[in-house]
Amino acid sequence: MERIKTGIAELDAMLKGGFMPGDAVLLTGSAGSGKTTLALQYLVNGVTKFGDKGIYVTFEELPDQIYRDALNLGWDLRKLEDEDKLRIICTSPNIMLETDEGENILDQPIKEIQPRRIVIDALSHLEIFVPKEELRREVYRLARHLKMKNLSSLLLWEKPEILGQSFSVTDAGIGFLVDSIVVLKFVEIESSMKKALMILKMRGSDHDKHLREFQTTSNGISIFASFDEYEGIMTGSPRRRVGERFANAFK
Amino acid sequence: MERIKTGIAELDAMLKGGFMPGDAVLLTGSAGSGKTTLALQYLVNGVTKFGDKGIYVTFEELPDQIYRDALNLGWDLRKLEDEDKLRIICTSPNIMLETDEGENILDQPIKEIQPRRIVIDALSHLEIFVPKEELRREVYRLARHLKMKNLSSLLLWEKPEILGQSFSVTDAGIGFLVDSIVVLKFVEIESSMKKALMILKMRGSDHDKHLREFQTTSNGISIFASFDEYEGIMTGSPRRRVGERFANAFK
Amino acid sequence: MERIKTGIAELDAMLKGGFMPGDAVLLTGSAGSGKTTLALQYLVNGVTKFGDKGIYVTFEELPDQIYRDALNLGWDLRKLEDEDKLRIICTSPNIMLETDEGENILDQPIKEIQPRRIVIDALSHLEIFVPKEELRREVYRLARHLKMKNLSSLLLWEKPEILGQSFSVTDAGIGFLVDSIVVLKFVEIESSMKKALMILKMRGSDHDKHLREFQTTSNGISIFASFDEYEGIMTGSPRRRVGERFANAFK
Amino acid sequence: MERIKTGIAELDAMLKGGFMPGDAVLLTGSAGSGKTTLALQYLVNGVTKFGDKGIYVTFEELPDQIYRDALNLGWDLRKLEDEDKLRIICTSPNIMLETDEGENILDQPIKEIQPRRIVIDALSHLEIFVPKEELRREVYRLARHLKMKNLSSLLLWEKPEILGQSFSVTDAGIGFLVDSIVVLKFVEIESSMKKALMILKMRGSDHDKHLREFQTTSNGISIFASFDEYEGIMTGSPRRRVGERFANAFK
Amino acid sequence: MERIKTGIAELDAMLKGGFMPGDAVLLTGSAGSGKTTLALQYLVNGVTKFGDKGIYVTFEELPDQIYRDALNLGWDLRKLEDEDKLRIICTSPNIMLETDEGENILDQPIKEIQPRRIVIDALSHLEIFVPKEELRREVYRLARHLKMKNLSSLLLWEKPEILGQSFSVTDAGIGFLVDSIVVLKFVEIESSMKKALMILKMRGSDHDKHLREFQTTSNGISIFASFDEYEGIMTGSPRRRVGERFANAFK
Amino acid sequence: MERIKTGIAELDAMLKGGFMPGDAVLLTGSAGSGKTTLALQYLVNGVTKFGDKGIYVTFEELPDQIYRDALNLGWDLRKLEDEDKLRIICTSPNIMLETDEGENILDQPIKEIQPRRIVIDALSHLEIFVPKEELRREVYRLARHLKMKNLSSLLLWEKPEILGQSFSVTDAGIGFLVDSIVVLKFVEIESSMKKALMILKMRGSDHDKHLREFQTTSNGISIFASFDEYEGIMTGSPRRRVGERFANAFK
Repeated sequence: MERIKTGIAELDAMLKGGFMPGDAVLLTGSAGSGKTTLALQYLVNGVTKFGDKGIYVTFEELPDQIYRDALNLGWDLRKLEDEDKLRIICTSPNIMLETDEGENILDQPIKEIQPRRIVIDALSHLEIFVPKEELRREVYRLARHLKMKNLSSLLLWEKPEILGQSFSVTDAGIGFLVDSIVVLKFVEIESSMKKALMILKMRGSDHDKHLREFQTTSNGISIFASFDEYEGIMTGSPRRRVGERFANAFK
Repeated sequence: MERIKTGIAELDAMLKGGFMPGDAVLLTGSAGSGKTTLALQYLVNGVTKFGDKGIYVTFEELPDQIYRDALNLGWDLRKLEDEDKLRIICTSPNIMLETDEGENILDQPIKEIQPRRIVIDALSHLEIFVPKEELRREVYRLARHLKMKNLSSLLLWEKPEILGQSFSVTDAGIGFLVDSIVVLKFVEIESSMKKALMILKMRGSDHDKHLREFQTTSNGISIFASFDEYEGIMTGSPRRRVGERFANAFK
Repeated sequence: MERIKTGIAELDAMLKGGFMPGDAVLLTGSAGSGKTTLALQYLVNGVTKFGDKGIYVTFEELPDQIYRDALNLGWDLRKLEDEDKLRIICTSPNIMLETDEGENILDQPIKEIQPRRIVIDALSHLEIFVPKEELRREVYRLARHLKMKNLSSLLLWEKPEILGQSFSVTDAGIGFLVDSIVVLKFVEIESSMKKALMILKMRGSDHDKHLREFQTTSNGISIFASFDEYEGIMTGSPRRRVGERFANAFK
Repeated sequence: MERIKTGIAELDAMLKGGFMPGDAVLLTGSAGSGKTTLALQYLVNGVTKFGDKGIYVTFEELPDQIYRDALNLGWDLRKLEDEDKLRIICTSPNIMLETDEGENILDQPIKEIQPRRIVIDALSHLEIFVPKEELRREVYRLARHLKMKNLSSLLLWEKPEILGQSFSVTDAGIGFLVDSIVVLKFVEIESSMKKALMILKMRGSDHDKHLREFQTTSNGISIFASFDEYEGIMTGSPRRRVGERFANAFK
Repeated sequence: MERIKTGIAELDAMLKGGFMPGDAVLLTGSAGSGKTTLALQYLVNGVTKFGDKGIYVTFEELPDQIYRDALNLGWDLRKLEDEDKLRIICTSPNIMLETDEGENILDQPIKEIQPRRIVIDALSHLEIFVPKEELRREVYRLARHLKMKNLSSLLLWEKPEILGQSFSVTDAGIGFLVDSIVVLKFVEIESSMKKALMILKMRGSDHDKHLREFQTTSNGISIFASFDEYEGIMTGSPRRRVGERFANAFK
Repeated sequence: MERIKTGIAELDAMLKGGFMPGDAVLLTGSAGSGKTTLALQYLVNGVTKFGDKGIYVTFEELPDQIYRDALNLGWDLRKLEDEDKLRIICTSPNIMLETDEGENILDQPIKEIQPRRIVIDALSHLEIFVPKEELRREVYRLARHLKMKNLSSLLLWEKPEILGQSFSVTDAGIGFLVDSIVVLKFVEIESSMKKALMILKMRGSDHDKHLREFQTTSNGISIFASFDEYEGIMTGSPRRRVGERFANAFK
């Protein structure tokens, strides 16, 4: 079946071709982990490489920086908007959740450009406006709404924890509301904060299970090898693995 | 005594033949751990290999993906439904819990096809609708209701934690309400997220106590050897075990 | 002084003969740790080996499985009931706690068969019905009530945690309300979930302090050696101990 | 200055002679750690070895076991009571805290036998009756009341935690209300639950700082050497220390 | 693009030139980690080396010490104020948050000296006056307000934790409200509390990922090498890394 | 600038001469860590060695023990009071916080003897009387009040935790309200509870960063070397450090 390619070769390979069409994908990571860069690259590549139109929903009230940041990465979002291939919607979580006769703020632009991809940056901002007990229901409604519009959605979630002995996808228990989960994680190695990317869940498809190092370069996300020398990577402060020969030396 | 076979040879062997008839089995694991695949395989094998009819209750409101995902695994659920060997019920937790003169939404299909197996995917969704203090009572009532219908039930529970120094079956303390507990767990090994399956409890029967690696393949669940080289597997971030000879070298 | 023997030779040896008459014994462990098997064996051996009649209080509303499970272990509870040597009371926590002019549901059967042993399976179910702040007072009242009836009671408590860096007897702080405490614990060793039994407290008597491995066999509980090769057993995920000679090699 | 001797030679040596007269001593430990045995030995030795009369306040409503347990340890409490050298007061926390015109239930027996030592077994039971926010104030009032009666008090506190990475004297933050603190702790060593005794605080006096192993024998508490071979004893699950020569071998 | 230089050579190098103009930068660290020193140096260097006027908002009610401390570091804040190159505003969080027709206490001085840099010392003080649920909204409003004034802001946040197995940028989950995040952290090494500086996030720019040691000297912040010999630096209590050759020796 | 010397040579050296005049110093540590001894020594040395008068505020209602304890350390507080060089104020937290026309209970003695030093033993007692949400505001007001009286204050804070993987200065988040922070900590080493002293923060001055061992002797506090052989001292249960040569042997 045709896949929704991110256009990042290594990531599409990890995804065995790309995301499944119409899936709601949760992209989780802490501040500075590279969620927005990956999300913009997903949209821009969609337009420029695969002819998929896209919508980028941001809860920033000053989007200038988004254009600026994207330009630094070589992406001219304004141009793509002028060509009706991309829409950037600046709103607030509560407005986005409002519905007026079933219609909400996203429906008009969806009608206009018939997008195939959408990014919500960041779903976690809902926590500012939505009481914790309603959060899961709202996320559920939203994910379902986007699905009925046949949109492949990338839902960003910002985790407060940088590292810890325990790890959960989110602190809101919404992992089961999405089809796929991609995790970005800081990993302290050799006195440096490296970054790991992992596909934790991918519904109806096989996927690469490795924790792969990645960097944010002037061209966007680049993915490298996995951290074979280390144990406890998901805790954020891994231990150097002792060589197998050593461990087995006395067997 | 006759057992309810999963049809997954290694798992049935771990279960000393299969689940006990009429038991309520809790299948717990985090998002992406493979609960739904195992549950569908349990139902499909029931129909195709053992002549047990089944009901699959999902709280997804868009079941198309379920059919799609099942097809990817080689299971044609629609065909099984047309043959009245399987019912897929899309509902919401609160509706499922409602009773109208003792009758609830599950009773009609149960009457119709006289199933022997039922899956609830996922019981943890109740947390969205049921206040924490009532959750255990509702689960208790439901498990009992299914038991009185002579159904062997597989109750899925999604845990938010991927890894941690402490481990509980669920965060709702319902482990004692079920007859058996099967745990699916992510385990970080060599910079890769592997999966472990373990039978924690099996009422009135012996069972395999090992933590066995498993994978979700295009044919469903495949179970492999246990993680003999590692310590602390249940924490999700295990340590490489030092060879015994080494540890004992100086004894 | 005469002791209340469990009839499990190794356990009675650990108890220096058995439990103290009239003591309230807390038997704590997580789901699947073997509490019910040990408790039934305590009652059945009481009747068959020591002429002690017994009462088994269960909060299961479908006791058939209890009879079935016991039969699998070679214990015919119905026969013992017919001989008025055992009573199985199926009730709910709130009913058990009710008193009508000082009389509660347990008093009638106690009068009838004059039991010497009683099991409550499981005291922790009270948490479903009794608010946390009242729990300790109710447990206190119950333990005292049973004591005044000269019953040696085995009070089962189900802990949600399977493993963790910290360990408490219960999450309700009732350890000080009982005379003795026996702990059942899962221990992950060599990629397998083994079980440990430990006597934590025994009022007015010496007792074995070791963490002993045990298994649930077709004849009930069998107790084996302690885990001499491991550290941190009580955390549930122990470390292989380095041989002493090695540690001391350089002394 | 004269000290209040416990009569346990090693402990008195650790205390540089004994407790300070008139001090409120907190004796903390989990269920089964030996608090009551140590407390009774403190009182009995006071009477038999040092001519100090004593009061033992227990919140048990069935004190028979206390007499029985004491007899097992060779202490005939009834005889000491008959000789007006000891009073055992069975009451409940709320009654003990009541005051009627400044008089409370303890004052009468204090007047009668003019005791020098008092034990409250266990102060932590107050948590059942006193709301958390008032607990510290009540403990403060009680400790002060006993001080004004020139009593050397041993206040027992039961901790729910058996082991854990973090350690606090109590979970109620009352450590600063007492003059001295003695800690009893379970320590898992070589698959056995050993016990450690430590003097954490002793106001106005030097004291032994070691974590000493102790056992409860048929003659009461016996104190042995410290755990020199281990690290992390206070966590309850210590690590075997690597020999110093080894660690320094390469210096 | 032109950058906002801190004037600390090594830090500007880590920032690839300096902060981005108009960015809101969160500077987080525990008490004594050096936040105020770094913030003053940022302002003073702005004035003396780059001609950027600045505002320093403090919630101290006795600013004399600020002048004194700055003098100790060789910075004459009074002189800079007299020259209208710096404003020091002593206020309280609630006053700073008040707005009177859109105008708040910061707007007047901003009009007067047209600053380019502003420091809020410390944003975390808001927790004393603003209920937790409103905190994020207030920080959001403030950061946006400063941005619309074209100010490059340094927002200080004091973390209570000195060390721990888990690490979050703040305990208020505001990391996503800022453009960049600089972390100051205590690190226990060789029985000494050293300090680490790390750039966790820098929007629209590459940056150094290392954990660099720094000290507060009589001339302000000095930055040194990273902690290459250690693992788990972000936990605050790192482990000495075993030499790679050793780990690989047996490969 | 002239400093406020503690008169403890090693500590003054760590403080590069002493505390800064007029600073509010937080002295934090758990029960038995030696806070009161250090505080009294600070006051007595102030009087006897540096001619600084002092006030000691205690929330003990029975100050006799304070005099007794001080005498054991060779300090005759009564004599110093008679000479109007020291005032000991026994009060309760709520009374101390009351103000009557701006005047509070401390102002009269301050007027009388014109002290330069003050100790509050212990600020943490406020938690008994002041609701958590007001605590920081009250501490803020108090510290400011003492500052305006030109007093160098030593504010004692009792932490409940003895050891733990995480460490905060206080559990009330008041670290930012004081100018300097001195931490006293128990450290388990070789089966003994040793004590460490550390200067965590010192506003406007350099200071020693080491974790130094100290003891309470018959002459007060004595400070020794740092714990160079250990890692994780701040956790309270450190690990023996492996010799550097060993770690580097294979480099």
